[in-house]
Amino acid sequence: MIYRFPEKIQDNQKSLIRDIAERGSRIPGFISFALGNPAAESIPVEILQECAREVFEEDPMKVLQYGPLAGEAEISSWIRQRLIATKGCPENNHQVMMLTGSGKALGLVPRTLCEEGDEAFCDEFTFPNGFNSMKNVGAIPVGIPMDENGMIPEELEKQAKRGKGKYVYLIPNFQNPTGLTMPIERRKEIYEVARRYDLIIYEDDPYGEIRFCGDSVPTIKSFDDDGRVIYVGSFSKTLSAGLRVGFLYASNELIRKISVVKGADGQDPIYNQKIILKALGKMDYEEHLKTISAIYGRKCRIMADGLMEYCSSKCHILIPEGGMFIWVVIPESEDINAVSDAAIAAGVGVVKSEAFAVDPSRPGHAFRLNFSASKDEDIQRGCRIFGQITREFFD
Amino acid sequence: MIYRFPEKIQDNQKSLIRDIAERGSRIPGFISFALGNPAAESIPVEILQECAREVFEEDPMKVLQYGPLAGEAEISSWIRQRLIATKGCPENNHQVMMLTGSGKALGLVPRTLCEEGDEAFCDEFTFPNGFNSMKNVGAIPVGIPMDENGMIPEELEKQAKRGKGKYVYLIPNFQNPTGLTMPIERRKEIYEVARRYDLIIYEDDPYGEIRFCGDSVPTIKSFDDDGRVIYVGSFSKTLSAGLRVGFLYASNELIRKISVVKGADGQDPIYNQKIILKALGKMDYEEHLKTISAIYGRKCRIMADGLMEYCSSKCHILIPEGGMFIWVVIPESEDINAVSDAAIAAGVGVVKSEAFAVDPSRPGHAFRLNFSASKDEDIQRGCRIFGQITREFFD
Repeated sequence: MIYRFPEKIQDNQKSLIRDIAERGSRIPGFISFALGNPAAESIPVEILQECAREVFEEDPMKVLQYGPLAGEAEISSWIRQRLIATKGCPENNHQVMMLTGSGKALGLVPRTLCEEGDEAFCDEFTFPNGFNSMKNVGAIPVGIPMDENGMIPEELEKQAKRGKGKYVYLIPNFQNPTGLTMPIERRKEIYEVARRYDLIIYEDDPYGEIRFCGDSVPTIKSFDDDGRVIYVGSFSKTLSAGLRVGFLYASNELIRKISVVKGADGQDPIYNQKIILKALGKMDYEEHLKTISAIYGRKCRIMADGLMEYCSSKCHILIPEGGMFIWVVIPESEDINAVSDAAIAAGVGVVKSEAFAVDPSRPGHAFRLNFSASKDEDIQRGCRIFGQITREFFD
Repeated sequence: MIYRFPEKIQDNQKSLIRDIAERGSRIPGFISFALGNPAAESIPVEILQECAREVFEEDPMKVLQYGPLAGEAEISSWIRQRLIATKGCPENNHQVMMLTGSGKALGLVPRTLCEEGDEAFCDEFTFPNGFNSMKNVGAIPVGIPMDENGMIPEELEKQAKRGKGKYVYLIPNFQNPTGLTMPIERRKEIYEVARRYDLIIYEDDPYGEIRFCGDSVPTIKSFDDDGRVIYVGSFSKTLSAGLRVGFLYASNELIRKISVVKGADGQDPIYNQKIILKALGKMDYEEHLKTISAIYGRKCRIMADGLMEYCSSKCHILIPEGGMFIWVVIPESEDINAVSDAAIAAGVGVVKSEAFAVDPSRPGHAFRLNFSASKDEDIQRGCRIFGQITREFFD
C-alpha cells in the first residue's frame, strides 16, 4: 500500500529519553535522572487504595456504566472552588473541564484554536508534547528565547507581529526542563503582548503545587481580565500520575469550543476522577502539599549539593524553587553529545537540552536532571559520577 | 475578547439526544429508548469489583505511577491473539494500540490521516462522533447512501473518484443507528473501492460481539491484504463501558503514524486496562459473550414483538441480528418532528434519524430505538405508547 500520509505527521522523531533508558538498561547499577516521575514516597498509597475500593463498593454502576460526558460534577466543583480561593482565578463565566491527565489539553488546545499554517509560541526549550501537538495539527511551533525569568516578552512580540499566532504555551512555575519560575512582572508583560496580538495563553501548571522555597507567584489566570488564559492543572504530581486526573479552567466560551473537539473523542473514565475526589475528602490536601513539597525540597537539596560539590565550576547550575528538575548549563564551546555519552557510559542518564528544543538547529548546551524519581543515595552517587565527567571534560 | 476561532469548530450543534433527556426529565414515568447504554444485567459487577481490588493490592505503584505509553502489554497481547484466532485478523506486521475507550480512535484517525479540505466517507446515517471528528480536523464528511446491506459501493465510488478522500468510516456489524449488518459480498465490494482509490477503511466494531442470531460475517480486516484496514474494538458493551477500555488493530505503519498523534496527548490510565485484563483471566469470555448476547436477544425480541403488535403497518421495522438498536422507518410523507414530539409528550423518547444524518439537509424518516438500556416491562410499555402514536399519525 502506498498511502499519502500528511506531512505534518512526523514519525521519524527519535526519543532521546527512550534512548537513555535503552542504553541504561544494559549498564548494571545505572542511575537515571532522565524521567519525570513523581517521588514514590509522596504518593498516599493507602488512602488511594481505600478510596478505589470504596468508590466501587458504594455505587458500582457509576464506575461501570457510561457517565456524564463533562466528567464528575463534584470534583469539578471542588477544583473550581480551590482555584478561586487559592489561585485567584476568576469566578464568573468560567468553568472546569475534567481531563484524563492534564496532558490531554496539549492536544485539545491546538485542535481547537489552530488551522494549518497558523503559528503557536512556546519557550525555546519546553515539554516536547507542548510543541509536537502544535505540529500534529499542521500549525508551526515558534520557540521564543528565554532569559533567567523565562520567555522574553520583546522576543515574543517580534514573532507575534506577523499576525499568524494563535496561542502561547507557557509553564510559568518550575518550567520543564529549566526549572525556571516566571516572576509576576514578566507574567504581566507576556500577558500584555498576548492582549495586543490577541493570543490565547495556555498556562500549564503541573508542578505549581510543589513549591519548596520562595513565595508563590500569582497565576496569569488571576489577572486575566479578557478571559484569554486557559489554566491547566493536575493531580499527577500531588496524588497519583497513573490515575490520569487533570483539568483545565477557562471562560465559558473557550470551554464550549474545546468541548466540541473533546466531545467527539467520547467519554473519559469517571472511576479515576471519583477516586481522586474521595481522597481529597479524606485528607487535608493543603497539609499534604506541604508534606510532599518538603520531600521534593529535600531531594532537590541533595542533588544541588552533589552537583555543586562535584561539577566543574564551568557548569551553571539552576536550582529551582519547586518542581522536579535541575538545569545544568555547560560551556558553549564543549561537545554536549560527548559529555552525554560519557555520562551514560559511566552509569548516569541526564537529558540533553536538544530533547526539549523547538528548533532542532538550536539544540542548546544544557542538561535536565530529575531529582524526584531516584532514591537519595542514588542522587548522591549519580551527581558524583556526572560531576566527575564534567570536570574531565571542562577543567 | 474578540478571538477568531477556526470555522471548523462548530459549537452551535444541538444534541437531539440531550434534548430528549431534558424534556423527558419533566415527564413522570418517562421511558427513554434514546440512549446507547449497555444492559446493566450483562455487566459482571462482582468480578470487576474483585479485579479492581486485586489489581490495586498486587502492585499499587503500577496503578499510581506513570505506566507504559503504549498501554498494558499483557492485554494487548491477549487482544491480539483473540483477533487472530476469532476474527481472522492478519498476524504479521500488525499491532494492537490500547485506547481509553474505542471512541478515542474516532479522533485519532482523522487527526492522523487528514489535512484541511480532505474528504472522508461514512454511511449517510451513522454515529455522529464518526463525522463530527472529521469536521473537527477541517476535513469534509461525505455521507454515502445505504441500502439494506449498508453502504452502496457504487455510491462510494462516485464520491471517491474526486480523489480527495482519505478514509471510509464503517460499522459493519449492527450499525449505529440502523442495526444493519453488511454481508460479506458487500464488505468485499467496499474493500475493492477502497483499494482502487487508496482509501483507509476504519472498521468500527463496538457491537460485533453481541450477535444473538444469524451467522457472524468475516471482518473486513480478515481479507485486508494491503494493510489498509484499521479494526477498532471495545470492551464497553461486553464488560464495562465506564472503565473505558478499547483498542485498535492495524499495520505497524499505521500504528506508527497514529502513535505520533496519540503520544503527544500523553498517557492513558493503566489501572482500567489491568482491571479488564484480570477479569478476562478469571472468566470464560466466549461463554460470557454467549450469555450476554442471549440477554440482548431477549430484549430485542421483546421490543420487536411490541413494535410489530402496536405500530402502524406503514412503519418499516428493521430487526437486527445483534447490537442494541432497532430502526423504524416511517413514510416519507409524514412529519417526523410532529411524531417525535408526540411520542415524547406521551412519555417515550425515540431518536429521529436527523441526529445521525451527515447531511442536515437530508434528515431522513426513521427513528432509532434502543432496547438494551430499559427494563423488559418498560420496553413493552414504551412500544405500546410509541406504536399508538404511529397509528394515530399514519393510519
